[in-house]
Amino acid sequence: MGVAGENQVRLHSGERLDALGRDGLRIIQHPGVFRFTTDAYLLAAFARAEAGESVLELGSGNGVVVILLASRTRAARVVGVEIQPALAGMAARSIDLNGLADRAAVLQHDLRAPLPNGPHRFDLVVSNPPYLPPGTGRPGSCVSVTLAKQEITCTLRDVTEAAVRAIAGNGRFILVHRPGRLPEIMDECRRVHLIPKRLALVHPRPGRAAAHLLLEARPGGRPGLTVDPPLYVRGEDGGFSPEMDQVFAGQWPWSG
Amino acid sequence: MGVAGENQVRLHSGERLDALGRDGLRIIQHPGVFRFTTDAYLLAAFARAEAGESVLELGSGNGVVVILLASRTRAARVVGVEIQPALAGMAARSIDLNGLADRAAVLQHDLRAPLPNGPHRFDLVVSNPPYLPPGTGRPGSCVSVTLAKQEITCTLRDVTEAAVRAIAGNGRFILVHRPGRLPEIMDECRRVHLIPKRLALVHPRPGRAAAHLLLEARPGGRPGLTVDPPLYVRGEDGGFSPEMDQVFAGQWPWSG
Repeated sequence: MGVAGENQVRLHSGERLDALGRDGLRIIQHPGVFRFTTDAYLLAAFARAEAGESVLELGSGNGVVVILLASRTRAARVVGVEIQPALAGMAARSIDLNGLADRAAVLQHDLRAPLPNGPHRFDLVVSNPPYLPPGTGRPGSCVSVTLAKQEITCTLRDVTEAAVRAIAGNGRFILVHRPGRLPEIMDECRRVHLIPKRLALVHPRPGRAAAHLLLEARPGGRPGLTVDPPLYVRGEDGGFSPEMDQVFAGQWPWSG
Repeated sequence: MGVAGENQVRLHSGERLDALGRDGLRIIQHPGVFRFTTDAYLLAAFARAEAGESVLELGSGNGVVVILLASRTRAARVVGVEIQPALAGMAARSIDLNGLADRAAVLQHDLRAPLPNGPHRFDLVVSNPPYLPPGTGRPGSCVSVTLAKQEITCTLRDVTEAAVRAIAGNGRFILVHRPGRLPEIMDECRRVHLIPKRLALVHPRPGRAAAHLLLEARPGGRPGLTVDPPLYVRGEDGGFSPEMDQVFAGQWPWSG
């Protein structure tokens, strides 16, 4: 166990401290275990969390989305659940490190089970679940990466069912996933009576097929979906687009 | 009845002859009855019809899509069905006018019923169906416009059921519709075992929400959807985008 920085963060073997690129936020990562990607920033920005909202994240990994949401939305209570003890522990230490323990927590918990502390309803439920069906990932990855990327401990159905259990009547569910799964996502929403309200497609750059989708669904209201303008991660010149810079800063470019 | 142009086309009262903007094609329109929109060009271009393919259009209006597809795809047989006799008649005269009667036809027929000439299977089934639930259109429109825009004689379910009856085993169904209906479209596809394979969102211009969607679905194969790059109808300057010019010329910009 090492010590790094003035906040006396305890780093376990192989871990390192990375900057989150805004507000001086930092996060503990382990290159061999799990590292966050731009998906986390996309999810946090698209969610448009407001001050005072309670937020639940289903499958928090090392806590990056919880930290992004808790740091940006000052008054919110943000809870994450993560099945892998090592990741939940990293998340808890990163929350401490960033001084967010008063309003954020990541619990080691299987999202398929009811939340441990009795009934809960949240204004906002977010998830960046495993994208791949079991057995379709790269062979030889470690168990931790496999669990984060493949639907082994958590299928799309597990996530939508957990979301609908946890969401308040006027709340919303925000999901980041792959476009290839869109029909199945719509079908799982229909099964649990979540109504898709807002969709955004994220393209690596202009002229390329979408690589990610972001979906907002609600447990009630009239059918009717809005498709936001597309988001290009990078511009023609290969650098991050102005819209992606907004996302890194925690803002969705088309908040309407 | 009047006579216009060297092709001796018979124009009924109130009708006029409009250019389709390519290959010298012209079409009979009636301002008070039904006029085609850019949706027709989008549908024809996204369909990527190939020489030799047989094509069925469900709900042909004045025949614009049948004419666009038949003129571009030299060897194809293109059949349209249209429930409104006046529109089917206009379509038939426009097909004659453009010298396409050897490979194209529009029949007055209710798409909810089996096709009149025995069993048929098509490589490609396309549709630009009414977008609006009954009673949601502008009041005071004439009956013809109301039938073309509202789901009175033809619901989304009618269209997907007709498509799946008419489509060959390795064929494809191409639909243009409103993004707001996407969850329902996915659900209707699922009901009849059509698998969404390719989706494109059409935005009026950069930074605006999508106004149309184009979907390709197939009666078999593995799940997995590709989302094409977005299509902007107009650029920042308000003129048609280069991609839309390709669409007007009958080409989909991202044919892969």
